[in-house]
Amino acid sequence: MTFQRIAIIGLGLLGGSIGLAVKEYLPGARTTGYDLDPANRRRAAERALTDRVCETAAEAVREADLVIFCVPPGAMGAAAREIAGAVPADAVISDVGSCKQSIAAALTEALPDHAVIPAHPVAGTENSGPDAGFAALFQKRWCIITPPADADPALVAKLSAFWEALGARVELMDAQHHDLVLAVTSHLPHLIAYTIVGTASDLEDVTQSEVIKYSAGGFRDFTRIAASDPVMWRDVFLANKEAVLEMLQRFSEDLTALQRAIRWGDGDALFDLFTRTRAIRRSIIEQGQDDARPDFGRTDH
Amino acid sequence: MTFQRIAIIGLGLLGGSIGLAVKEYLPGARTTGYDLDPANRRRAAERALTDRVCETAAEAVREADLVIFCVPPGAMGAAAREIAGAVPADAVISDVGSCKQSIAAALTEALPDHAVIPAHPVAGTENSGPDAGFAALFQKRWCIITPPADADPALVAKLSAFWEALGARVELMDAQHHDLVLAVTSHLPHLIAYTIVGTASDLEDVTQSEVIKYSAGGFRDFTRIAASDPVMWRDVFLANKEAVLEMLQRFSEDLTALQRAIRWGDGDALFDLFTRTRAIRRSIIEQGQDDARPDFGRTDH
Repeated sequence: MTFQRIAIIGLGLLGGSIGLAVKEYLPGARTTGYDLDPANRRRAAERALTDRVCETAAEAVREADLVIFCVPPGAMGAAAREIAGAVPADAVISDVGSCKQSIAAALTEALPDHAVIPAHPVAGTENSGPDAGFAALFQKRWCIITPPADADPALVAKLSAFWEALGARVELMDAQHHDLVLAVTSHLPHLIAYTIVGTASDLEDVTQSEVIKYSAGGFRDFTRIAASDPVMWRDVFLANKEAVLEMLQRFSEDLTALQRAIRWGDGDALFDLFTRTRAIRRSIIEQGQDDARPDFGRTDH
Repeated sequence: MTFQRIAIIGLGLLGGSIGLAVKEYLPGARTTGYDLDPANRRRAAERALTDRVCETAAEAVREADLVIFCVPPGAMGAAAREIAGAVPADAVISDVGSCKQSIAAALTEALPDHAVIPAHPVAGTENSGPDAGFAALFQKRWCIITPPADADPALVAKLSAFWEALGARVELMDAQHHDLVLAVTSHLPHLIAYTIVGTASDLEDVTQSEVIKYSAGGFRDFTRIAASDPVMWRDVFLANKEAVLEMLQRFSEDLTALQRAIRWGDGDALFDLFTRTRAIRRSIIEQGQDDARPDFGRTDH
């Protein structure tokens, strides 16, 4: 058995998808939702992202056995303080944020008497807001749960069952290790994508219109990632600073080595790296983490 | 009217797609093909990538009015020398390479008495070889033609008509400017993608299996690009060295600025960049250069 009365705080891509996924895959459970932005609450009600969209966070959590915070990492603490007086004592507190150490600390500080079990479904799209969610977002994706050392194993199992019901595969991990792994598989790629799109739009000799026209040469893939929610990503980089800076440093060293190989015409070094990187792609497709169709199966083809 | 007897030298992703596209969209024209690799010739014949697959390059070009070289940039000169005695005097020589100055020089040196009009269809997928081609590859994509200053306008028009028949939109450009534009929209993105995939596979604290499992956080998009043909990309970076190093330098400066913003907790600088980059994505989708479906419409969703 898993949770039956789920309160979702924040009704964007993640919160909305959880609401729709519960409706689809856990039909017995009831959901309540709240979003700080009245326009988002209205739109969430129109799309019926949760069974009930409440006018206050306190109202949303009043009968919850699970509260999931789906707000940007920097807003977790304030959102948790808002429900402190209203949430039942035995409700489990969780979230979906992309950096776990800082969020665990913020939630635990705001709700010191509750069981806080952070989680991170590694899934998403470049879209955000109450129109972006869909029920199948978590299918075949991994959800990493980072229980604190003293967490009740029964509650961890209950949260695992919840995510598995929504279609995810669950992995338990230490929060610090999570933050390191995600720094390389998610945070660094976003940082690089944001940077290159910025670089390309600041050139004097190449116009923005040319960058857009000829983006099918590779650039357009980066723009997808660089269209992700700016508030969330600002918070991620500030919250997972140490791990991101460490990965960035390694990346810069590797890039400098490649730059040197190009400058000195060392074709063998280039060829060796370019051959090595193909194997990882194959594994990602074999393990069902990406679409095998060429070019992501873009519609033109 | 456009060309009617097209010889395709190199039957990989691009050559094969041209052959199939001619069959589909220029049914009157005849195609001949050649590939240095006997296994590729066999497979090309099985897939009927061209009407006839020849055992020598000389045989393939003997009656051609258009010869298109679809080999890696570094192999253009040798491939052109192979047909020097056999190609009709009035045949137009073209190619599909991603860097135009060096290829124009190599083709002109090998075939000094022929009309050489280089071209670059900005289209592709991560797949390569004779199984990768498909007729619709050029639909709605731009093809940049870089005629030398003394090119016959009638032949340029004929080559433009050829690419338009295959579904592309044509733009004329100076070869030097082409190399600068593509350095940012194609070469730099590939270089960055190869680098980050290399960085991620060389970590001590994060296993390769973790990198693969949690790649849906953004990393997997980079692995697609980093699965592209290693020989071709080695040649591109060596051939377009100056422009690539210039773009790389700008990118590194921008990345260093972002690194500094993270280290000093300058959230406003991060937020400003992350907001700016969304607009470019919108334009790329509006102009039909990418798929508007979230997450590239991956099949899981």
